[in-house]
Amino acid sequence: MEFEISDRMKTVLKMIDDFMIKEIVPLEPEFLNREFKEMLPVLEEKRNMVKQMELWAPNHPKEYGGMGLGLMEHALVSEALGYSPLGHYIFGCQAPDAGNVELLYHYGTEDQKAQYLAPLVEGKIRSCFAMTEPEVAGSNPIMLQATAEKDGDDYVINGHKWFASSAEGAAFAIAMLVTDTGPNANPYLKASMIIVPTDTPGFNLVRNIPVMGHRGSDYASHGEILFQNCRVPRTNLLGPEGHGFIMAQERLGPGRIHHCMRWLGVCRRSMELMINFALERVIAPGNKTLSTRQIIQLWAAECEADVLAARLMTLHAAWKAEKLGQKEARYDISFLKFFVANVMQKVVDRAMQVHGGIGVSDYSILSFFYRQERAARVYDGTDEIHKFAASRRVFEKYKGRKTLW
Amino acid sequence: MEFEISDRMKTVLKMIDDFMIKEIVPLEPEFLNREFKEMLPVLEEKRNMVKQMELWAPNHPKEYGGMGLGLMEHALVSEALGYSPLGHYIFGCQAPDAGNVELLYHYGTEDQKAQYLAPLVEGKIRSCFAMTEPEVAGSNPIMLQATAEKDGDDYVINGHKWFASSAEGAAFAIAMLVTDTGPNANPYLKASMIIVPTDTPGFNLVRNIPVMGHRGSDYASHGEILFQNCRVPRTNLLGPEGHGFIMAQERLGPGRIHHCMRWLGVCRRSMELMINFALERVIAPGNKTLSTRQIIQLWAAECEADVLAARLMTLHAAWKAEKLGQKEARYDISFLKFFVANVMQKVVDRAMQVHGGIGVSDYSILSFFYRQERAARVYDGTDEIHKFAASRRVFEKYKGRKTLW
Amino acid sequence: MEFEISDRMKTVLKMIDDFMIKEIVPLEPEFLNREFKEMLPVLEEKRNMVKQMELWAPNHPKEYGGMGLGLMEHALVSEALGYSPLGHYIFGCQAPDAGNVELLYHYGTEDQKAQYLAPLVEGKIRSCFAMTEPEVAGSNPIMLQATAEKDGDDYVINGHKWFASSAEGAAFAIAMLVTDTGPNANPYLKASMIIVPTDTPGFNLVRNIPVMGHRGSDYASHGEILFQNCRVPRTNLLGPEGHGFIMAQERLGPGRIHHCMRWLGVCRRSMELMINFALERVIAPGNKTLSTRQIIQLWAAECEADVLAARLMTLHAAWKAEKLGQKEARYDISFLKFFVANVMQKVVDRAMQVHGGIGVSDYSILSFFYRQERAARVYDGTDEIHKFAASRRVFEKYKGRKTLW
Amino acid sequence: MEFEISDRMKTVLKMIDDFMIKEIVPLEPEFLNREFKEMLPVLEEKRNMVKQMELWAPNHPKEYGGMGLGLMEHALVSEALGYSPLGHYIFGCQAPDAGNVELLYHYGTEDQKAQYLAPLVEGKIRSCFAMTEPEVAGSNPIMLQATAEKDGDDYVINGHKWFASSAEGAAFAIAMLVTDTGPNANPYLKASMIIVPTDTPGFNLVRNIPVMGHRGSDYASHGEILFQNCRVPRTNLLGPEGHGFIMAQERLGPGRIHHCMRWLGVCRRSMELMINFALERVIAPGNKTLSTRQIIQLWAAECEADVLAARLMTLHAAWKAEKLGQKEARYDISFLKFFVANVMQKVVDRAMQVHGGIGVSDYSILSFFYRQERAARVYDGTDEIHKFAASRRVFEKYKGRKTLW
Repeated sequence: MEFEISDRMKTVLKMIDDFMIKEIVPLEPEFLNREFKEMLPVLEEKRNMVKQMELWAPNHPKEYGGMGLGLMEHALVSEALGYSPLGHYIFGCQAPDAGNVELLYHYGTEDQKAQYLAPLVEGKIRSCFAMTEPEVAGSNPIMLQATAEKDGDDYVINGHKWFASSAEGAAFAIAMLVTDTGPNANPYLKASMIIVPTDTPGFNLVRNIPVMGHRGSDYASHGEILFQNCRVPRTNLLGPEGHGFIMAQERLGPGRIHHCMRWLGVCRRSMELMINFALERVIAPGNKTLSTRQIIQLWAAECEADVLAARLMTLHAAWKAEKLGQKEARYDISFLKFFVANVMQKVVDRAMQVHGGIGVSDYSILSFFYRQERAARVYDGTDEIHKFAASRRVFEKYKGRKTLW
Repeated sequence: MEFEISDRMKTVLKMIDDFMIKEIVPLEPEFLNREFKEMLPVLEEKRNMVKQMELWAPNHPKEYGGMGLGLMEHALVSEALGYSPLGHYIFGCQAPDAGNVELLYHYGTEDQKAQYLAPLVEGKIRSCFAMTEPEVAGSNPIMLQATAEKDGDDYVINGHKWFASSAEGAAFAIAMLVTDTGPNANPYLKASMIIVPTDTPGFNLVRNIPVMGHRGSDYASHGEILFQNCRVPRTNLLGPEGHGFIMAQERLGPGRIHHCMRWLGVCRRSMELMINFALERVIAPGNKTLSTRQIIQLWAAECEADVLAARLMTLHAAWKAEKLGQKEARYDISFLKFFVANVMQKVVDRAMQVHGGIGVSDYSILSFFYRQERAARVYDGTDEIHKFAASRRVFEKYKGRKTLW
Repeated sequence: MEFEISDRMKTVLKMIDDFMIKEIVPLEPEFLNREFKEMLPVLEEKRNMVKQMELWAPNHPKEYGGMGLGLMEHALVSEALGYSPLGHYIFGCQAPDAGNVELLYHYGTEDQKAQYLAPLVEGKIRSCFAMTEPEVAGSNPIMLQATAEKDGDDYVINGHKWFASSAEGAAFAIAMLVTDTGPNANPYLKASMIIVPTDTPGFNLVRNIPVMGHRGSDYASHGEILFQNCRVPRTNLLGPEGHGFIMAQERLGPGRIHHCMRWLGVCRRSMELMINFALERVIAPGNKTLSTRQIIQLWAAECEADVLAARLMTLHAAWKAEKLGQKEARYDISFLKFFVANVMQKVVDRAMQVHGGIGVSDYSILSFFYRQERAARVYDGTDEIHKFAASRRVFEKYKGRKTLW
Repeated sequence: MEFEISDRMKTVLKMIDDFMIKEIVPLEPEFLNREFKEMLPVLEEKRNMVKQMELWAPNHPKEYGGMGLGLMEHALVSEALGYSPLGHYIFGCQAPDAGNVELLYHYGTEDQKAQYLAPLVEGKIRSCFAMTEPEVAGSNPIMLQATAEKDGDDYVINGHKWFASSAEGAAFAIAMLVTDTGPNANPYLKASMIIVPTDTPGFNLVRNIPVMGHRGSDYASHGEILFQNCRVPRTNLLGPEGHGFIMAQERLGPGRIHHCMRWLGVCRRSMELMINFALERVIAPGNKTLSTRQIIQLWAAECEADVLAARLMTLHAAWKAEKLGQKEARYDISFLKFFVANVMQKVVDRAMQVHGGIGVSDYSILSFFYRQERAARVYDGTDEIHKFAASRRVFEKYKGRKTLW
């Protein structure tokens, strides 16, 4: 075993870290108090700086202008970027575009790559992913109802999607649609992914779903989409017909690892805020600071232990996925999805508590993390769904050897 | 022992309950998506309905137009009203006015009562309470810095306050100010409460503090106030000079009990939402609903047990305060402040988790509770401050009898 | 609502409390280091003192020599006795005899009462209850296999039972046996309770089950029983044939309340030990004691809050059972069974942790509580079984009122 | 990063694993029901088998007959051996001898090595470590009172020690004794380690401390020792005079890592028992097993996630200690000491709960783990002591970078 990372990655991480502090964190007060769309110009400026530093799109293929980092390397980058809510966007590796890039890279035709992948990696356009539907539980994909029916050379799409993150301002959606509507369709092979440009007639962005008190805008939004006889050419099919769920599983694997590392970035930031607030906040005459309270010390140790554990689990899963493939790492990813999300929630909650009234105000990024990252225990599979999935491996692993009783 | 409540209270609670469902809950979607100040007309309408039902200001003295309920009776009412974030406001018993009414009733001169108390109970004006200061930790009141210095017949006030809830639109503030600025001042007897009309020159509402993503407006806001040579007559002193902290302790006692019962109303609503969502949400073909999942059943039982426990603790403290006085019940209130706040946070969190994506959206009141009620573990004393306070009684109670070891 | 208890009960509790400290606690070191059966003479002595104080058998009918206390009154007594593991035995209200007394009192014929009930209440004999079987899960009584088949005027009993507490030295067992062995037997009406004197041929006490490191002896043991063609007269049937499960439910209800109160006695003792150890244990030069550590203070407050909550829940359920009947209180009892057992485990665990090495040694009663009371989350229904049962009421209670979503 | 282990270690672990199942686990029922000393012959037999397999003393130096494994290699072995409470003893790497071997190897003179180290590694003699004293808190070593005063060529030892594990039957003790008794002694440099053969006059093994219900015997015991004018030659000083605490810190570091891995072996065994019991235990007609209960599935996933996390933390600390030295890894070891101990307690507790009544009986090894391993949160520094120690690093790590607030 060897836990050391390469010198190259140390340099990359140091550069990112410095950039976060110097260029990105100062944007946060504005980010917390204005609409995202109003910030687009200054964000564009920062993106150009990143490109000039040659740190753009760290996880994306070199041939399309990214850095081409491996899964574990980008895991480390994702942690560094998670330090601020603006990190991933400014470095061109934000969800849901990152996942869409992977899908297009692995399954796209040459035409699809030229039209959608290249400008997406370059940051010229954005995209969204339309899967969840209001009428059916998101936890069970086989219940999806939106359809794409073949009609000549086209698909005609009808259905209702929501929680399509970043739909506002996106150039295209990748939509999960039932293409085999027959009564005997194999429920796991009935859906396909189809590229739908958002200016296609019949693609209606009904509204942004208000989430945690905000409708949001542009990239920072979650769209509700109504497909009404929305017609796209059959060449917009992405990957094999009927392989939608299979591709989704593959897409989500690395994405979950990177989410977890982003959450660890949130943890790091929260720890930093907790410690430094405790060191500065005077709570009694004689410059006695909050850091002298034993309970803060215990929390610091408990949180850091959890973060260390969560971090090692995530890196281990990244290593496994890289070495043995996504399939082999699938259960590891289930374990870490719920484990890390809960560590993050606990760490953010405790850091808030240390901050008292300031913690719940928008003067602290903690209140943003508290609101925004609660969804981590829900999206990409709830804690409970992942626990059930993971339990299968636990049963397989320990089954069969009976010692006493 | 006897846990039964009176028939009269049963009737009152039933009336409130019906009114909540019929008149108040339907206002919530608007409440969740608009500024509070835009809702003032419709809220005024509902307030008039409450007055006509003779349920107005349940906790306030009869002679000023309230119902004159006792501490425990109003505890039950507070639970019923906590069902919706709009309940207390519409029934005229909202914080911080409720606490200010108590202060004015017990300490106010006849003139003060006529000028401030009467219209406050009637709902014609609103008020705020200005105590916490940005520069010093709220957990330690003896560090307060804002002063009121005597100058002829006046006090001249200078200082900085924040988290003065509902300052925007308030007619007056009750401010906690250092009146004994001498170097040998007894730290616990140096501050006084002074009534400051908000239109007094030198009373500056600098801004509303943004909290959990919103600056808020009118009643639903938290003000930052700068007193600059703000001059009020010495007759505005409320209660004895130097008794500010003593009066604050007395004011906070019943308020904490009513907060706890309001939180239990939040719990009840959250339980109701959890259960009914689980009963309706289909998660698998064949109309198999979420309620068939064992984990939901376990959560339901665990949450309800916690809520039952929290409720009995709160009613027990109310009984004790009513029977033996605030002082005797002081530690009970410390215990329940942190206990109930944590039960609420857990129940809301689990109800959200059951709701999946909907839970974090503003289509559910749960996401409002999640954001807004996090502060319950901070205001009126953090969990930790109350635990330390309460521990004193635990040590006293068990001290002295040594059995083994 | 009224939480005050009667003056009479205050006097009774004070007497018990004094007796515990003066006469019972001093026996504990011996109890912790010797076999129970060796202590029988000294225990008999103490029992006689209790009888002379007229505090014997507080929960049992006056006509048979008990004090005839009501459910809630005895709940308070049970808490006071739970202070020491020897309390209930010395006061003549120990399980499983207490439950058997209730069964005999409500269902016994005059002959059965004369022969079994009278000497049992008097403390002249002991009894056991034989229900659980090694081959089938205790959580599901309908799977029970031991049978009592009618043969002339007799029942002929065959089967295997274990965890029959206190079987060693018992004069008789009340056994739960399948009397309707037909293929169409209603599973809930197929079993009956039958009195089996332990000297009946075919009643074989195979061994004492070793539990937590000890086989135990006499009252402090858990027997494994093999019935082999064990023949008892049909007049030994207790209650109506086929009503075994119904009677068991009724028997267990009050028993669970008294168990919970006993556990609260364990909590009280543990708190007392925790606090006094913390006050005396010097951890740094200058007589700085453990009680100055903030973490101990926080634990003290958290534990006491949990204990208060658990206590109110238990008293509330006792009140409900007394006022509205066992059936009405059934769900309340499910809630409190798991709630209180977990509070006890947490309190004992924390008190141990405060004691360091001494806590895990047998110089402290805590290590006994830790081992012995772990079973509280298992017997009389596991936590999980009770949560599932309780969840039914939660669903009923909240069902039907849908507000938002 | 690289998480793969060497092929050699894979082979070693496989051999151990097979041996555990085939030769050691079958001894457990006897171990659970008899005195340790009665088992010495059969244990000796197994030890010889281990020697023949050349797996003896895996962590000890090759030159003395051990395998000479590195810190991380032995960490993996310790996990495999932790599967049974008898593992470490049978493989010759049990505490406290393992720590004493390290001390003698690093600090012993040639004479000391010949006389004590060689037979100790060989398993011909046993030893104990005498540090903790009944009169002072074990958490603060500078309060130790037992002294070794120089008198000619001898030390004369007086004092009281307890919790000296395995003192019964030990050939010698390494005792921590105050050698600098002057009033100005540096508290951290006042104690020394001295080798005391147990047959020295004045070395009195007063008794075995009863722990969790048992006094134990031979290796499985915890001794109370009274030194009364116990005279040993000054050549029995181990290491430099006054370096006792420094050496203790160094001794405890690797020991804690190996303890943690042993606890992970306990976790593995507990998981295995939990899963297999769940798979076999029928809880409803139709062969429906406990494993079909969702709650068991959730527990399985949660426990396994915790175990994975704990394991990675431990291996990471071992790697760090091996690569950068004990000093660098000191804080990592503090984090993992409390983290892993708590994971173990939770996993054992849940596995017990799954087993119901059997779990608390001595038919299951779980009840032994539950009792015996509770001390893991106490010995070698309580959870709280380690959290305070660890918090220092957390403060250092995050200190200084202030972003928002």
